[in-house]
Amino acid sequence: MEYFTNVKKVKYEGIDSKNPLAFKIYNAEEIIGGKTMEEHLKFSVAYWHTFAEELTDPFGSGTAIRPWDNITDPMEKAKAKVEAAFELFDKLNVPYFAFHDVDIAPEGESLKETFENMDIIVDLIKEKMETSKTKLLWNTVNNFSHPRFVHGAASSNNADVFAYAAAKVKKGLEVGKKLGSQSYVFWGGREGYESLLNTDMGLEVDNLGRFFHMAIDYASKIGYEGQFLIEPKPKEPTSHQYDFDVATTHAFLQKYNLDDKLKFNIEANHATLAGHSFEHELRYARINKMLGSVDANQGHPLLGWDTDEFPSDMYATTLAMYEILKNGGLEKGGLNFDSKVRRTSFEPEDLFRAHIVGMDSFALGLKVAHKMIEENVFENIIDKRYKSFNEGIGKDIVEGNTDFDKLTEHALNLKEVKNESGQLEVIKGVLNQYILQALSGK
Amino acid sequence: MEYFTNVKKVKYEGIDSKNPLAFKIYNAEEIIGGKTMEEHLKFSVAYWHTFAEELTDPFGSGTAIRPWDNITDPMEKAKAKVEAAFELFDKLNVPYFAFHDVDIAPEGESLKETFENMDIIVDLIKEKMETSKTKLLWNTVNNFSHPRFVHGAASSNNADVFAYAAAKVKKGLEVGKKLGSQSYVFWGGREGYESLLNTDMGLEVDNLGRFFHMAIDYASKIGYEGQFLIEPKPKEPTSHQYDFDVATTHAFLQKYNLDDKLKFNIEANHATLAGHSFEHELRYARINKMLGSVDANQGHPLLGWDTDEFPSDMYATTLAMYEILKNGGLEKGGLNFDSKVRRTSFEPEDLFRAHIVGMDSFALGLKVAHKMIEENVFENIIDKRYKSFNEGIGKDIVEGNTDFDKLTEHALNLKEVKNESGQLEVIKGVLNQYILQALSGK
Amino acid sequence: MEYFTNVKKVKYEGIDSKNPLAFKIYNAEEIIGGKTMEEHLKFSVAYWHTFAEELTDPFGSGTAIRPWDNITDPMEKAKAKVEAAFELFDKLNVPYFAFHDVDIAPEGESLKETFENMDIIVDLIKEKMETSKTKLLWNTVNNFSHPRFVHGAASSNNADVFAYAAAKVKKGLEVGKKLGSQSYVFWGGREGYESLLNTDMGLEVDNLGRFFHMAIDYASKIGYEGQFLIEPKPKEPTSHQYDFDVATTHAFLQKYNLDDKLKFNIEANHATLAGHSFEHELRYARINKMLGSVDANQGHPLLGWDTDEFPSDMYATTLAMYEILKNGGLEKGGLNFDSKVRRTSFEPEDLFRAHIVGMDSFALGLKVAHKMIEENVFENIIDKRYKSFNEGIGKDIVEGNTDFDKLTEHALNLKEVKNESGQLEVIKGVLNQYILQALSGK
Amino acid sequence: MEYFTNVKKVKYEGIDSKNPLAFKIYNAEEIIGGKTMEEHLKFSVAYWHTFAEELTDPFGSGTAIRPWDNITDPMEKAKAKVEAAFELFDKLNVPYFAFHDVDIAPEGESLKETFENMDIIVDLIKEKMETSKTKLLWNTVNNFSHPRFVHGAASSNNADVFAYAAAKVKKGLEVGKKLGSQSYVFWGGREGYESLLNTDMGLEVDNLGRFFHMAIDYASKIGYEGQFLIEPKPKEPTSHQYDFDVATTHAFLQKYNLDDKLKFNIEANHATLAGHSFEHELRYARINKMLGSVDANQGHPLLGWDTDEFPSDMYATTLAMYEILKNGGLEKGGLNFDSKVRRTSFEPEDLFRAHIVGMDSFALGLKVAHKMIEENVFENIIDKRYKSFNEGIGKDIVEGNTDFDKLTEHALNLKEVKNESGQLEVIKGVLNQYILQALSGK
Repeated sequence: MEYFTNVKKVKYEGIDSKNPLAFKIYNAEEIIGGKTMEEHLKFSVAYWHTFAEELTDPFGSGTAIRPWDNITDPMEKAKAKVEAAFELFDKLNVPYFAFHDVDIAPEGESLKETFENMDIIVDLIKEKMETSKTKLLWNTVNNFSHPRFVHGAASSNNADVFAYAAAKVKKGLEVGKKLGSQSYVFWGGREGYESLLNTDMGLEVDNLGRFFHMAIDYASKIGYEGQFLIEPKPKEPTSHQYDFDVATTHAFLQKYNLDDKLKFNIEANHATLAGHSFEHELRYARINKMLGSVDANQGHPLLGWDTDEFPSDMYATTLAMYEILKNGGLEKGGLNFDSKVRRTSFEPEDLFRAHIVGMDSFALGLKVAHKMIEENVFENIIDKRYKSFNEGIGKDIVEGNTDFDKLTEHALNLKEVKNESGQLEVIKGVLNQYILQALSGK
Repeated sequence: MEYFTNVKKVKYEGIDSKNPLAFKIYNAEEIIGGKTMEEHLKFSVAYWHTFAEELTDPFGSGTAIRPWDNITDPMEKAKAKVEAAFELFDKLNVPYFAFHDVDIAPEGESLKETFENMDIIVDLIKEKMETSKTKLLWNTVNNFSHPRFVHGAASSNNADVFAYAAAKVKKGLEVGKKLGSQSYVFWGGREGYESLLNTDMGLEVDNLGRFFHMAIDYASKIGYEGQFLIEPKPKEPTSHQYDFDVATTHAFLQKYNLDDKLKFNIEANHATLAGHSFEHELRYARINKMLGSVDANQGHPLLGWDTDEFPSDMYATTLAMYEILKNGGLEKGGLNFDSKVRRTSFEPEDLFRAHIVGMDSFALGLKVAHKMIEENVFENIIDKRYKSFNEGIGKDIVEGNTDFDKLTEHALNLKEVKNESGQLEVIKGVLNQYILQALSGK
Repeated sequence: MEYFTNVKKVKYEGIDSKNPLAFKIYNAEEIIGGKTMEEHLKFSVAYWHTFAEELTDPFGSGTAIRPWDNITDPMEKAKAKVEAAFELFDKLNVPYFAFHDVDIAPEGESLKETFENMDIIVDLIKEKMETSKTKLLWNTVNNFSHPRFVHGAASSNNADVFAYAAAKVKKGLEVGKKLGSQSYVFWGGREGYESLLNTDMGLEVDNLGRFFHMAIDYASKIGYEGQFLIEPKPKEPTSHQYDFDVATTHAFLQKYNLDDKLKFNIEANHATLAGHSFEHELRYARINKMLGSVDANQGHPLLGWDTDEFPSDMYATTLAMYEILKNGGLEKGGLNFDSKVRRTSFEPEDLFRAHIVGMDSFALGLKVAHKMIEENVFENIIDKRYKSFNEGIGKDIVEGNTDFDKLTEHALNLKEVKNESGQLEVIKGVLNQYILQALSGK
Repeated sequence: MEYFTNVKKVKYEGIDSKNPLAFKIYNAEEIIGGKTMEEHLKFSVAYWHTFAEELTDPFGSGTAIRPWDNITDPMEKAKAKVEAAFELFDKLNVPYFAFHDVDIAPEGESLKETFENMDIIVDLIKEKMETSKTKLLWNTVNNFSHPRFVHGAASSNNADVFAYAAAKVKKGLEVGKKLGSQSYVFWGGREGYESLLNTDMGLEVDNLGRFFHMAIDYASKIGYEGQFLIEPKPKEPTSHQYDFDVATTHAFLQKYNLDDKLKFNIEANHATLAGHSFEHELRYARINKMLGSVDANQGHPLLGWDTDEFPSDMYATTLAMYEILKNGGLEKGGLNFDSKVRRTSFEPEDLFRAHIVGMDSFALGLKVAHKMIEENVFENIIDKRYKSFNEGIGKDIVEGNTDFDKLTEHALNLKEVKNESGQLEVIKGVLNQYILQALSGK
């Protein structure tokens, strides 16, 4: 049966289109720098936001109106969502999707029953995937929503909970292998603390390290070949999460000898909650060769919580795509819309309308970033600014051929230190020009 | 003599221009909706940032390199700056400027000497204005930088300081009258508190009210006809300023019967420091018919202090121009660049480069906003969303023809309450489309 | 039946007590400045947090374990909660409670049925109150959680919703009259906007004004004599609420001629979310003679959402009690614990433990503030700092006997302007001393 | 000569004292747990804030009134400050001080002259130290204030600047050796970026790594035996500093193999600017055995910039001292007051008053934390909460004797997962009790 009966297959109609159910910029087959837009962008639909989200907030109950609302049996509802999901993937023509275990199948009375439920739905998904172009970008398990995880999962004070979390991740890896997920993601929703006053932070972080090693060992044992990803977030739901931001997580991974085994899954809104720009987190990961995948969304600059809005800011999408292109793409990663429609956008069609805006916004970002890289806009600025490191004392510094004695001699002999304007205002103006000309064909 | 010898008269060269000393979008004579861009935008150069700013920050001394750096005598330097200012006004072709008393003339050993210094420079400015197109948008006095204002000015705990502040404003009004300023602005830099623990907030705010009444009386006495403006800011330099935001200041003005005597001068960065969007503050003022003028700049979304950056964000300039156009323009106000070049943009030419980016960004905003208004983009959305207030019970509500009894009867008879999606994602996508098409001629 | 079987009547045991189910500081009958602690503090239990809260968060389902969990029929559960509530009130010996309509009774299939459900429970509460000391501090209605309020209530774009909200407030006023609530509170949970892009702010705020007038008229009609209170909050659930903070709401009340009809209900965590200290909001209300009641809780200084924690910060409780004592108490208001136990404090006994900490913390604040006022600590500082307004030019300013001419003459004649240190560091040290000595009997 | 003629040697007078120039809690010789307060706290005066700070802010010029104001010759003023400094150290009886190069001696026309100026003052300081108990806690160099460092120092785009910075650090290490500084601190004031748009972050961070290695090599070469410390800060003056917080810096140190060569100097206000509590940063460093020293100050919870206030918050000092005591003290570090008097506290005596409040606040923190540790308050909570890791599956996890297969088997066999309340409210109440009883002698 068809679930989204008001929506037809979404087509590219160009920038002039007034149709909210058409792409204005995203044109999957359009070639940019030798690859199609689809290959560059690798869009993914997040199962949780699109099929499991009821649009509640801390002060209000769910507003979402969904075609499967009248189904009451949990397993029947789960199956209906799988059908609806592949219908949406097809109508949006997205190449990937992503899920947590609890998004796709209801928990049972026991862990065993939970696994049985999951097996049934995983089989159904596998079957659907056989006739669909849409692949599994990544999967993960939700070890944070159920009350048993109230004090954390791998960082819980309760060893039984650690074991329970391990069992769920083990199952997640098996599911990943079965469905061929490109990556497996760890987001430690409650791996952090509410207060230091009752927390043994040392033990908790050590246990996190142990958990990752066991997960990697198990993946190796079963031959799961996806990329492991870790997703930083500073706070919410906990007051302070151990994977605060990319750099904090980099420290953790190095300390526990995990930095060659995981890459980062970077979410825009998590970056801003940590006090960083989205592009900062991408850049940090990129220069450390650890940029794995992207959770594409945006936060509200004036709100202090995770709004997970669909991305629409063209500055953010441009600078993100700049980092991704400079990274040579995302390999086993993609642009996963970890984005939810606003609570006020509760109609079924909003799921399409919102994805379209997100896809168009990133397609625009791709076009602008690609052109700026082709024309070496930022690269020329950088080359000129840092040219002093290509010769003389600068070259010696970079190549390790100097020391404080020689540098001091150099400094004492300088007549003057001459700096040049950073011209940031001009650079921002140039960025505007490129955005404004993106669709002009020049 | 010519001060900015590396800069010629800045011309419009169009969006393709790579010349950082040319306009890409701003074209003063271009007609938009029956008025020239110049008439719409009423750009103003801020004397303090452009001619008095040394580019210090709390951790660093001034970096600015200026053509008048080698002049040591304070009055000679002040005169040189006047010359340089009118050269810059002319080369940028800006119709307005704005200043504080201390920006244009050095303080003397006594208040009397300070006034004498000011008179000399004011006469020089008046003379320059006679052969220049550039007019005085507004003037004000700086009652916050000198140590005497350490505990505030009109809200100081020291009555002598209140008197001193009054004397300076009196002089400011006389200068405004002499130079024909369109408005007189109050920004209460230290009118607030560092801590409530040693503050008599009631007395301080009452004194502020008294001060404004005396200023208005004096303006009336001397026949000064400019518009009084008040500029909200939440904090910095004080921990909490009494004019926290537009709404707070609106409460103050109403309480002291001043709301028909002043309008708002709204600064973008002050809005964001208060936790509001720029457009929120403009909207609040507009619907209360109190939108007077705009301090055009932008803050850094991740920094907690006043960065006063030149505006470049096209979303912000578009939404600001939307409010301004809906306001029917700014009457005696304008777009004053209360913006400073970055400390790293220390070359004299950066003063031009940065203004150009700001002017282009607002010109773009004007174009987009004008087109959206012409095509009723937001208006159609609003009309549709609120149509229930045009008839039946909605009309009764708006017209005051109902009460809780009747409303309850209506509610009890409702079979269902039917809401529609707010479609915010779509609206953001449409805004992007208008920005991207702004220069396409469609 | 007894619900909280592990908890006996909570007693005062003094500061040395290690018993988490005993008061360490709060001693209801202890006399402070001629009144008992109970009379000063007027504690109130918030029905919603204590009896309706499931301890969910945006990333997790409810963890609360409650003695009524096994009751499935909504009305039976509602009745059980009433029993449990009065047991808790009695065991904690609190003089007041507060509720929203939906806290006490489940919504029905229709508005009519909802009202019928409410009548049944209100009668039960009335019956319980007859044999209890605990009175109703205030009541209100929840016009924000149900999907029908997705776009607001009195500021909805849908006139039917306005009517629905009116019907609920009408009923709320009738309930308030029946149960003798001291006050009726308006908190406009969704009276604000998610985005200006689709919002007619002018109409929405006008409608809010109309709504308040109709509510007041209806109260007058039925002879409800409680105090109307309005509770500011800047954001959450909406992106921007119209009652942003006390000052913003003061502007609103003045504009719509409501400022003599409502006072403020000030919540600590709402203050901090708006960028103010709790004491700032109390002070603002106090000097405008509009301090009505207090929602006693605290936020987390590093989190951007409403955590509604039980108050424990002794600085905050001291400075709050200072404002309340200077206000001459709260008349028809009180200290309502709009506070929820942490999601990790999910045991039934935590409801008691947390209230005890809150009550002890405010009792300490009362003791410190009372002593500081008795010894004129802040008053002496203020008197000395502002003494220049008691004579000469300062007196003229305050009494309106001067103008800019006279003030200028005064300023021109000043030899120097002499300020004195504000000594904030010393004052903070003194505050510490008073807290440390609070229980020493000196 | 005596500079602070209004201040005598500051004595301990006890909590009842009203004398702002006496200690109320700090009693240097008092024994706490086998060591004197002086040995525990190791207070240090920051030369920059106390002797070089003019009390400017971004909107105001300096208000400080200092006994050396009338000295105009820079070297004579520098010498006078040394005299005044040792007078203050003696009167406050502080065991340590700390400085940057530019705090103690003026820069010359050339680097050579700068070094000569410094040599003269260093000799004078050395002479003063011979007859003083006050030792040098740490020294550093200021590579951020001068315009030459506008684009950074070791992370500048200009190799000459890198060399200049190296020469200054080289000199700093020599000065440290000569004066016997316990540590040498790196704070990278401008080691970060204003914008990614013109920044080669990879090269800049690599160069930072190179710089540290060269500094360490040089220290080794000259036999400097102080501890190297690095001080994180997230922003200000740059938009984003590379040493954002302790964890970010930990990642950097590990990446460049520096983590066994440096420890952290942690500043309270830098912690809060990064979105962390002070105690979080201390805890992170402690569990990584990298807690070196502390910059004792506090920020304003509602302001987004570095206020560097003298510490007075008893919660913060208690939790900081808890971490320090659990660390076994600070070895070569101490509590350095990187704190400035408020701009409104401009009198010379305020320098004493403010230090006294800071010292008393930390002395109180020491007393409370010591008692809580002696009574195992937090330790008992932790032991009970985490007991599941002492046996069975928990012990296997910690000891590395398990894997996902075994854990899954354990989880599948669990009948239920039983968690206990975290009782945070109670714990906060207990902390209050300990503070209130700190001086009661119990």
